[in-house]
Amino acid sequence: MNERPDRSPITSPRSERVRKVAALAGRSARRKQGRFRVEGPQSVRSLLEHRPDLAREVHLTERAATDHPELLDLARDAGVLVSTVDEQILRALVREPAAGAPDGAAADGSGAAGALVTPQGVVAIGDLPAEDPAAAASALEALPADRAVTVVILHEVRDPGNVGTLIRTADAAGADLVLLTRTSADPYSPKAVRASVGSLFHLPVLTGAVIEDVLEQLSGSAITAAATSGYASSELFDVELPPRIAWILGNEARGLDEATLAAAPLTVRIPLAGHAESLNVHTAATVCLFETLRRRRAGA
Amino acid sequence: MNERPDRSPITSPRSERVRKVAALAGRSARRKQGRFRVEGPQSVRSLLEHRPDLAREVHLTERAATDHPELLDLARDAGVLVSTVDEQILRALVREPAAGAPDGAAADGSGAAGALVTPQGVVAIGDLPAEDPAAAASALEALPADRAVTVVILHEVRDPGNVGTLIRTADAAGADLVLLTRTSADPYSPKAVRASVGSLFHLPVLTGAVIEDVLEQLSGSAITAAATSGYASSELFDVELPPRIAWILGNEARGLDEATLAAAPLTVRIPLAGHAESLNVHTAATVCLFETLRRRRAGA
Repeated sequence: MNERPDRSPITSPRSERVRKVAALAGRSARRKQGRFRVEGPQSVRSLLEHRPDLAREVHLTERAATDHPELLDLARDAGVLVSTVDEQILRALVREPAAGAPDGAAADGSGAAGALVTPQGVVAIGDLPAEDPAAAASALEALPADRAVTVVILHEVRDPGNVGTLIRTADAAGADLVLLTRTSADPYSPKAVRASVGSLFHLPVLTGAVIEDVLEQLSGSAITAAATSGYASSELFDVELPPRIAWILGNEARGLDEATLAAAPLTVRIPLAGHAESLNVHTAATVCLFETLRRRRAGA
Repeated sequence: MNERPDRSPITSPRSERVRKVAALAGRSARRKQGRFRVEGPQSVRSLLEHRPDLAREVHLTERAATDHPELLDLARDAGVLVSTVDEQILRALVREPAAGAPDGAAADGSGAAGALVTPQGVVAIGDLPAEDPAAAASALEALPADRAVTVVILHEVRDPGNVGTLIRTADAAGADLVLLTRTSADPYSPKAVRASVGSLFHLPVLTGAVIEDVLEQLSGSAITAAATSGYASSELFDVELPPRIAWILGNEARGLDEATLAAAPLTVRIPLAGHAESLNVHTAATVCLFETLRRRRAGA
């Protein structure tokens, strides 16, 4: 993982280096190479600004270099290799695998469809953070003890677009930490990275958490695990929310499993006023996280 | 549009009738035929329960008929033709056109990817409501004058999955009416219908509205047009929300155009607590609509 980057120019869209970057659409290639891919000026800027420690290479067109000179400055400050490539090579770097690939190539959404077609002139490569339950535990442990905190736990959220959008919304609502259990989609898949629009680099996002361990750790801490359920007796807007809270979000189709739901000390129902039978996981998360933010601000 | 349905059994997946239903994925075919398509037991049940006046035909497999006997009862009560078809014909009814079709076949999302593959044994055909600015005006006019109302206006929301999800969220938050301007995606596209998960039939949803006319009508009514803007001086959580409110939601990439924003008497900023630069249109709508619901319930 720490070999020096190849500083020779990329001259062919069919070169081995280009194929390795394109392969980063797949989880197994990301693990094998220890790398992930970031596309588009906004996301690359976030990577270079907020997580320069992860950044390794930036590839961009002459046009993108002219349009976004700040990327060159940020890359230089971060000591990151910058290479200028032509449009054809740039497109080859983000070539999508055939539909049905493990990351759900056909299942993306979140309005990111444009990004499937063009990376807007810039692609970055970063070091893939390890999937590490111990790192998740340490990150929880390290949260400040003397103020309000909001943690978001994604458990079995399978769609990479949803994972990215949830990270973006968690960021916007001021979450301090996002943990993903092993059975969630990888936030470092290109689809999730695109959907997070840079938020992946704005707050600590840790993968590989084990839900039972996280719940046990929370129960011994002063952070209350909270979940939504259509069968909960209390409504979100009526219940007192603890200032230190960890929202656990579950699978798109099935929600949270019963054991996890039973282990959460706080379960709330989101009021549904019309005839809708349910909310999707992202809508439910948005309501809970912005209500948490509203209370936090009202209390400040 | 009012010819009697063909009651003969469908015997081939390549028949003209099957091809006409499959073609309903395209907006021009929907307009030409005056029909739209609904897939899956939950959405078909909502159509038959809430808008039996629109329902014309239900096609389902033997298996689906056994698993969902209530659909047969509802169809009989609605006087709707029911035909039993084999799985091969059912799949042919929902065959997707090639990617790049006008409805954005490759751009769907919202966790509805499974529905692209299987309609879960049931497909219904309905009469397509006309795109009619006068109907939109009448629906606004007809809202009760003596209580709180929430209207949602979608202006230039281009992704059918977003349109469907926004209708679902509007329903869940108790909206009384959804209006779509001509430049929004069609809520009767299969992708939008799937993403709305039945909510399309739970509340009045009218297409073909003209934004200038709607704004003028609102300004003469006791319903306040409201919009979000990152530059608004008031924050959503601090500002007084009128009990009769119409939230105007704009394009995914560009937001609302300046003229529309300037014409809205109320603009609010959604507080962003982290480093996220913006929210997507659905997240912003969720925050505004559920805050509206929370205030409404707190005031009751």
